[in-house]
Amino acid sequence: MTLTTAQADYDAFRAQGLKLDMSRGKPAPEQLDLSNDLLGPLGDHLATDGTDTRNYGGGIGLPEARALFASLLDQPVANVIVDSNASLSLMHDVIVYHLLHGAPDQPSWLSQKPVKFLCPVPGYDRHFSICLSLGIEMINVRLNDDGPDMDQVEALVANDPAIKGMWCVPKYANPSGAVYSDAAVTRLANMKTAAADFRLMWDDAYRLHHLTTSPCDVANILSACEAAGHADRAFIFASTSKITLAGAGMAAMAASASNLQWWQKHANIRSIGPDKVNQLRHVRFLKDRANVEALMMRHQAILRPKFDAVLAQFEAHLSGIAEVSWTHPNGGYFIDLQTPPGFAKKTVELAKAAGITLTPAGAAFPYGKDPQDRHIRIAPSFPSLGDITEAAKGIALCLKLALAS
Amino acid sequence: MTLTTAQADYDAFRAQGLKLDMSRGKPAPEQLDLSNDLLGPLGDHLATDGTDTRNYGGGIGLPEARALFASLLDQPVANVIVDSNASLSLMHDVIVYHLLHGAPDQPSWLSQKPVKFLCPVPGYDRHFSICLSLGIEMINVRLNDDGPDMDQVEALVANDPAIKGMWCVPKYANPSGAVYSDAAVTRLANMKTAAADFRLMWDDAYRLHHLTTSPCDVANILSACEAAGHADRAFIFASTSKITLAGAGMAAMAASASNLQWWQKHANIRSIGPDKVNQLRHVRFLKDRANVEALMMRHQAILRPKFDAVLAQFEAHLSGIAEVSWTHPNGGYFIDLQTPPGFAKKTVELAKAAGITLTPAGAAFPYGKDPQDRHIRIAPSFPSLGDITEAAKGIALCLKLALAS
Repeated sequence: MTLTTAQADYDAFRAQGLKLDMSRGKPAPEQLDLSNDLLGPLGDHLATDGTDTRNYGGGIGLPEARALFASLLDQPVANVIVDSNASLSLMHDVIVYHLLHGAPDQPSWLSQKPVKFLCPVPGYDRHFSICLSLGIEMINVRLNDDGPDMDQVEALVANDPAIKGMWCVPKYANPSGAVYSDAAVTRLANMKTAAADFRLMWDDAYRLHHLTTSPCDVANILSACEAAGHADRAFIFASTSKITLAGAGMAAMAASASNLQWWQKHANIRSIGPDKVNQLRHVRFLKDRANVEALMMRHQAILRPKFDAVLAQFEAHLSGIAEVSWTHPNGGYFIDLQTPPGFAKKTVELAKAAGITLTPAGAAFPYGKDPQDRHIRIAPSFPSLGDITEAAKGIALCLKLALAS
Repeated sequence: MTLTTAQADYDAFRAQGLKLDMSRGKPAPEQLDLSNDLLGPLGDHLATDGTDTRNYGGGIGLPEARALFASLLDQPVANVIVDSNASLSLMHDVIVYHLLHGAPDQPSWLSQKPVKFLCPVPGYDRHFSICLSLGIEMINVRLNDDGPDMDQVEALVANDPAIKGMWCVPKYANPSGAVYSDAAVTRLANMKTAAADFRLMWDDAYRLHHLTTSPCDVANILSACEAAGHADRAFIFASTSKITLAGAGMAAMAASASNLQWWQKHANIRSIGPDKVNQLRHVRFLKDRANVEALMMRHQAILRPKFDAVLAQFEAHLSGIAEVSWTHPNGGYFIDLQTPPGFAKKTVELAKAAGITLTPAGAAFPYGKDPQDRHIRIAPSFPSLGDITEAAKGIALCLKLALAS
């Protein structure tokens, strides 16, 4: 393609004066509408065990909220706690408590500095922001379609006791859509780590967020860790943020009995308990796993056409261009568009000038540095179907102009 | 009084088989009922600025929630943020961020160890638990009826740069009911501190929680600090926990622009935002300051008779006993019963054996150590009026038995 054509296409696109923010995986208003009954009358305010949900207390969550998440996460109720609206906060605090207090019967991470985390890349920028903010060194490891490069991971953790943790989005990873294989889960659970207090931060954000009718399954990391003699290795995180209301849902954590006891000890200093009224509201709305799965099919019905529209535009405008590719995720909230090395930043800038805000190029990497400058995270969920179609075409034109320049 | 009589009175009381938990200042169910409309239909879900409260974002709270708290706290909206259900979490995190990151343009508190806090006593046990958990040394200072012993405070902070903070419950202090005088506020704002990053943790938990029709006023600490050239010295904390629903309300923080910027920078790493649907629900229910004040009068109507019942029982059974006294608070949630030195623990134990759970003796002091073993925190709010009357009588009988033994 000549520069002139690419420039003309881009200029025509830009002239539309779009103003679209595609930087985050926000649910669309019509997805939030699916849970509007949560805003309605709650009726009474008593939990099944008689707890007055309006009052103080209940640091580990209502029994029925724990039971619901236990069923969604395929874990025993005893291994699940339910908290406020953000699983990100649970992740942050788990790391802060390790830094300040240390794992059960272990010295604090701060007393063992430096502290390092493995980061499969591309990955979730907010995970990396936590590490950056808390002074934790990040080490990139390659994320394949079936999970992290386990040879690399095993070699690193076996030899460096400063490596205290690893971020994992095991299903429909943000942004690539990767799904961890059983072999990857087994190796993560079994691998020898030089650090006795090594932790898997298992962010199961998209566990039920399928884009096809044949859901992917990921092996149970807690069982695998327990079977391997590393019961305390994994913390699982989940939330209803992309099931009900993104900002007003509930978050959950699953872990070993010892880790949950440790958690409660520290979290109890910070708060007298989460919003149990909202937990009750959620449990009455969501009911049970079957009902949640039916709700997720309604999300899929809204999301799938948007993903299809992006894929169709990329196919129409970018197919056949050397070193340009994109993921075809079976679930989750993102598509990873890969440009030839050195063209992601430029493309994002051109899109911005045309009114489309994308996640900054590099955001999917620790320190915001995509070593090859080739990944662009596409978040199709929030814009309308019409807008997302236009935007995907526009992004493709931006990339073509960048390549032609 | 003879031991025989005291023992007989106690035995008769114990024989009733009471089972009352008076250990915490929990609102009574009829107080929570005052806000039951919060459980009802919300109607739409859009904030005044068009924000869809159901989605992600809004880390500093909804504009109308901030405006409401600004009015309740007599602060400019720009200096107020609104968060989730627990002001305790805001306090905890403010300290954690100072420990890990340091105050604006200052080294982290952890890099300046030891870190010490002044603790006016008797005080709030959960404040002290935060310090204990985070390895912060606590120094007792005397709390008088009109605020902390300022001579002692000024001498300590002027000479020890390790003293980084001080807990203050300026109005109707937990548990003594003390109200800080204007002079105390002025001295706290103006005093020279050896530490450049000294912070007042101003827990305004009972700002609107009057027990009389002539509310006490406390001077504006933020204005006083600013006038004194110490704009960043104070963080004010408040919540609706004892206004609407104890476990399902919203918390707020007021501070200088620089401190709020600092807060946002760190809090934004931890969460994408608080539950804005609940904020909207609260603002629509609470409406404005006048309406909140009317609601607080309805709380007073429920609480005042319970306080009166306790005071009447103490008067009837304990008046005239040497070195026994109790506070007559004008607001807040507690009465501080003072025994002769060495008798608090024994009295609490006897009460427990008779079915009344009180806050452990000593809990109102750092490290759980009341140096004279003479303070018992009475929390009249949760039990019914009948129960609290019985319980207060019982506690009096327990003290009398302890004294006679």
